[in-house]
Amino acid sequence: MKKVRTEISRVAALQRNMDARSIEALLVTRHENVRYLTGFTGSSGSVVVARGRWILITDFRYKIQAAAEAPGSKAIIQKKDHVTAIRDAARRLGAETLWFDESSLSIDVVRSFKKLGLRLKGTNDPVAEMRQRKDKVELAKIKLAIGRAEDSFRALKRFIKPGASESELGLKLEMLIREQGSRRPAFDSIVASGKNGAMPHASITGRRLRTGDLVTFDFGAEADGYCSDITRTLCVGRPSPRQRYIHDLVLQAQESAIKAAKPGIRCAELDLHARSVISKAGHSKHFGHATGHGVGLMVHEGPTISALSKGIVEDGMVFTVEPGVYIAGWGGVRIEDMVHVTAHGNRVLTSLPREL
Amino acid sequence: MKKVRTEISRVAALQRNMDARSIEALLVTRHENVRYLTGFTGSSGSVVVARGRWILITDFRYKIQAAAEAPGSKAIIQKKDHVTAIRDAARRLGAETLWFDESSLSIDVVRSFKKLGLRLKGTNDPVAEMRQRKDKVELAKIKLAIGRAEDSFRALKRFIKPGASESELGLKLEMLIREQGSRRPAFDSIVASGKNGAMPHASITGRRLRTGDLVTFDFGAEADGYCSDITRTLCVGRPSPRQRYIHDLVLQAQESAIKAAKPGIRCAELDLHARSVISKAGHSKHFGHATGHGVGLMVHEGPTISALSKGIVEDGMVFTVEPGVYIAGWGGVRIEDMVHVTAHGNRVLTSLPREL
Repeated sequence: MKKVRTEISRVAALQRNMDARSIEALLVTRHENVRYLTGFTGSSGSVVVARGRWILITDFRYKIQAAAEAPGSKAIIQKKDHVTAIRDAARRLGAETLWFDESSLSIDVVRSFKKLGLRLKGTNDPVAEMRQRKDKVELAKIKLAIGRAEDSFRALKRFIKPGASESELGLKLEMLIREQGSRRPAFDSIVASGKNGAMPHASITGRRLRTGDLVTFDFGAEADGYCSDITRTLCVGRPSPRQRYIHDLVLQAQESAIKAAKPGIRCAELDLHARSVISKAGHSKHFGHATGHGVGLMVHEGPTISALSKGIVEDGMVFTVEPGVYIAGWGGVRIEDMVHVTAHGNRVLTSLPREL
Repeated sequence: MKKVRTEISRVAALQRNMDARSIEALLVTRHENVRYLTGFTGSSGSVVVARGRWILITDFRYKIQAAAEAPGSKAIIQKKDHVTAIRDAARRLGAETLWFDESSLSIDVVRSFKKLGLRLKGTNDPVAEMRQRKDKVELAKIKLAIGRAEDSFRALKRFIKPGASESELGLKLEMLIREQGSRRPAFDSIVASGKNGAMPHASITGRRLRTGDLVTFDFGAEADGYCSDITRTLCVGRPSPRQRYIHDLVLQAQESAIKAAKPGIRCAELDLHARSVISKAGHSKHFGHATGHGVGLMVHEGPTISALSKGIVEDGMVFTVEPGVYIAGWGGVRIEDMVHVTAHGNRVLTSLPREL
């Protein structure tokens, strides 16, 4: 019953959104959007929504699973191909024209629809837009995913010492995350030590930690499909004055952005809060990525907290704040936390200590 | 040097393919295609190829990694957005028109290119087409991925007994796969016991194994980006006559298709070899998915071995043969092996015993 209620309320919210934008019928194909609306997690699934009604389209492999996961959805099992089944679902709902998300449908799929006589219209993704503001159920799952990641990192700490390799630590961390109950890590963990820390998205290597190394750990867990994403940079042994200075700088940049995060601020302005701290210290060239990104069913989703972003921060959003400084040949520091935007400010969801 | 040689030879092979199809300049965006051509594994990367030259486009986060992984590639680090950097790379290579893969570019990205004054032409993906035929280096990595999966499954066997839950076995299996050296499992493993086996792509549950259960294990490992994909169905305790009969039927269907796999046969005909055995026994409705799919950098890639497939089997292809019978309320059996097509026939790459 709870599942059915969630389906009904989410489709109803989408329908209001569609009505406001005069979208007669919507095709939803992105995996996370289908899961968000219906609960269905199979790899092959689409939803057509029109006039408050909706149909889930999947294939033979998921017949039983669709009924169990999405009990409120009318499901069609495709007989021929997926595109034909979607066309049939649209007809059944009396839709003349089907709106689709322009960021998720490829040219060849659009052509297949046109060949079947379906009229299509592009739009930006209304479900992804809804998914940016998390409801209570989603927030609880994100918090669970954060707890799993943080507990795993706490348990990892005693293994972080000279001689341990990046790959051993990565394996250990991901096993702890699995043991915590995550179906999988939210993404391939990063363990970047010494000079490797200068690569923001370093691949794990066999390099062994040495005394005096900075080590960046970027990791996340999963809970019922929802993700967490956290970064900590630690020093093996006593940090040098320069290591301490750069770490403090990144922390100041992060705190400046976190303090500013509240409904109404432009995402680009939030990015600038972090960036200007680093730029004023003469390190603008060493911070070449965005300040943050939304986290939910996807580990990277809207909003984007970057200089190019056109978004506005809204109540209910959950995103990372993760400035960094990366110096080739020396190493790097990144600190990443997750914040939940509330009516008048925000709450930091992550709780691991941020010291070096 | 070895990396550079691989880059040069793969781009040269692609260039010959492009010449044959009068493609002046090609944009490659799909992650696995970029990795195949250049070795670059970052999450943000595209390649433009024209007149035997090529440029890799990525962002700040991957500057050092791109140089290390793709030493033979000229790399551009995007200053503004990815699309503008691709436009600049195309100009630098003197390309007037850029061909792109219609299955991987979305409508909104195509529009962004057009806004920047770039002429675009759609084509089907020539790199994915090349990737269907594996070279020696790729075959070695696939064999390594198979070895890791098979060793893990052998080590799992002693835990498969009454009282063990699907989720415990799945966790154990995936930890073994990680310990074998895989960066991650090739996909979320399936452990489907009893009635759950009637779902070809069942999600793992907390259900505990009982004597007399059939249990389907579908799992794979990874080795340097390449995947394996294997399924075995076992019986907990002594199988019943019906369980034995269905298992034998699926095995016969699989063997019929494996025997027929050689260059020149149509993929749809290969599918029919497996399907007709099951249909003749009156179970056509219980085998509703394709007989197989290619495996390489992606766990599901071309060719598709299905009734709808228009492909032809070629020398060098590696694909699964995985018929199954699924009966709601009873359970299911699937047996999946990987074959490598040779000049005159094929070699089965997987070696786990196929008994119940």
